[in-house]
Amino acid sequence: MTFDYGVRLDRLRRLMDARSVDALLVSVGADLPYFTGYEAMPLERLTMLVVTAARPAVLVVPELEAPRVVTQAGVFEVRPWEETEDPVGIVTGLLDRVGSVAVGDQTWATFVLDLQRRLPGVRFDVASQVTGELRMRKETAELDALRRAARAADRVADRLRQLRFSGTSEAGLSRLVAGMTLEEGHQTAGFSIVASGPNGASPHHEATERVIEDGDAVVVDFGGKLDGYCSDTTRTFHVGKPTPEYRRIFAVLQEAQAAAVDAVRPGIVAQDVDRAARKIIERAGYGEFFIHRTGHGIGLEAHEHPYIVEGNHQELEPGMTFSIEPGVYLPGRFGMRIEDIVAVTDSGVERLNGSDRSLAVVA
Amino acid sequence: MTFDYGVRLDRLRRLMDARSVDALLVSVGADLPYFTGYEAMPLERLTMLVVTAARPAVLVVPELEAPRVVTQAGVFEVRPWEETEDPVGIVTGLLDRVGSVAVGDQTWATFVLDLQRRLPGVRFDVASQVTGELRMRKETAELDALRRAARAADRVADRLRQLRFSGTSEAGLSRLVAGMTLEEGHQTAGFSIVASGPNGASPHHEATERVIEDGDAVVVDFGGKLDGYCSDTTRTFHVGKPTPEYRRIFAVLQEAQAAAVDAVRPGIVAQDVDRAARKIIERAGYGEFFIHRTGHGIGLEAHEHPYIVEGNHQELEPGMTFSIEPGVYLPGRFGMRIEDIVAVTDSGVERLNGSDRSLAVVA
Repeated sequence: MTFDYGVRLDRLRRLMDARSVDALLVSVGADLPYFTGYEAMPLERLTMLVVTAARPAVLVVPELEAPRVVTQAGVFEVRPWEETEDPVGIVTGLLDRVGSVAVGDQTWATFVLDLQRRLPGVRFDVASQVTGELRMRKETAELDALRRAARAADRVADRLRQLRFSGTSEAGLSRLVAGMTLEEGHQTAGFSIVASGPNGASPHHEATERVIEDGDAVVVDFGGKLDGYCSDTTRTFHVGKPTPEYRRIFAVLQEAQAAAVDAVRPGIVAQDVDRAARKIIERAGYGEFFIHRTGHGIGLEAHEHPYIVEGNHQELEPGMTFSIEPGVYLPGRFGMRIEDIVAVTDSGVERLNGSDRSLAVVA
Repeated sequence: MTFDYGVRLDRLRRLMDARSVDALLVSVGADLPYFTGYEAMPLERLTMLVVTAARPAVLVVPELEAPRVVTQAGVFEVRPWEETEDPVGIVTGLLDRVGSVAVGDQTWATFVLDLQRRLPGVRFDVASQVTGELRMRKETAELDALRRAARAADRVADRLRQLRFSGTSEAGLSRLVAGMTLEEGHQTAGFSIVASGPNGASPHHEATERVIEDGDAVVVDFGGKLDGYCSDTTRTFHVGKPTPEYRRIFAVLQEAQAAAVDAVRPGIVAQDVDRAARKIIERAGYGEFFIHRTGHGIGLEAHEHPYIVEGNHQELEPGMTFSIEPGVYLPGRFGMRIEDIVAVTDSGVERLNGSDRSLAVVA
């Protein structure tokens, strides 16, 4: 998918002007593809887009990567650098008397420190202070891409309910989920967490050779990229009949997830969505076992602004997209999580994921 | 694989003392697993190992990742932080009157700038100034792991010579290579470049739907991780009979690659290995088409120190491992590259890759 990068760069320049940012320097991460359609390899050779008011944007790129750059006429220039050139010097050479620069949030320390040495007295801030404003509010085509990615993930989730879990290792099931993620239309499978039995209490558990058995709860959290946009969903499965206790806590979790989704509307602040879920889990006595925030923004990156967390006073606006994923984790025993991606609409909320989110009892 | 992290941290502390580095702060990238066995997720929540002379090392880690940390007794402490805590504040709270800190080279700008704001007057350098010294010189067990990874890649390369290329898309062949990379024993398949016909002139080409046909040269560059250590090898294939011109240039490339390998021995500087390959390609009149350095270090990371490039005066020492991968790229026409991993021995060089590196004529 391509977008009108010229329009985005114009918007960026207006915002830079309003915030008194003289130069924006973006490297690895999603700001670069957002403004150019080009993604930098996360390697030691510098790729950096230089945006200033005075000049056209310039993409400084290793010569050997340059053939991969596709330019939209007039939107930005390409400056390939050869192995024996000094790329940081090329970047600073494009800056005239700047007082403040904003560098991409994920730019490597190597380059940040080198830029600072060569730009004494210049103020450095993170780029997301301006780029986040733009990227948080999705365009129509971006929302469509996120819907397609969510639906592809839904198809994987629905297929999982039909599978036999017992006798399979976490690692084996994880590979299967990654394969289905690709089969259902993603171009890449980013991650596929399979956390069974007591491992379910580790929210970002790495799949092991543990063989799933009867009586296990299994948390499956997976996603990938489709046309550049991310999916991310979690469903919880139970091999055989769950205990009354598990059912009871899962009902609390369902209520909490639904309450957080229902809380989403323009004008509410991010932390209030977190509170909506947390309140219900706390009231049921499991607050200390909900050990992460309720969600994160999603788009070109799997995690981006806005973060749905206590202390984030960001006001939600139409076009913002994020996960709602409360969980309960009982150390040494089991875990559970339900995750959907939602979009803020003009009047409320749209769930992008529509697959069955009830507790799936599998064989 | 696990290593004696206590020994590594002791060595690190001695080197920090010698270089007047008061604190080492490592986050994403391979320094962290090198010293702790734990790899940080490249996400927005800070994970950071804090190493100072005065205290035991402390791993500051998001609470939800903490269950994934495995500690060796007494080697480092773990300080999980909750979602509403301030992780950068926790890190700076562990530093007493430091004058200079070294931050991991790939640490995100977000965290570097935040640390700088809270540590005014402190000198910031990159961690590789100390960690590179240690990581460049591989231990025996690391060399063994790199040999195993290289041999697994060799088996893939050998299988490729038996395949039919024509009629397959680049993307299809790339998926096949990734699959074989896993089948032959890697835990992850990092990349699989398949660049056919004119696309071969782009060294880091991304596989497309282009269907490979008779008369194409095809550059296949792939690798993965086995027991945490990287493989990386390139072989060039030709569908049907190559032209005399292609054969002639390939013979130059073979000679250049062999000359660079032969140049490797303790005491020579990195740039001289680059020069050994470049001289031969230049003498044959193709110097302007060899558009990248001759190689890069390899270990826990696919690209690390030492870089085999003009201007690098790093003296080679036994235990250093890197790629030797000259290439020739004729824009709009074709490309070729031969890549092996080598290790510096006490008296010369060991090729870790042993698969056939001659031009493979395939169907």
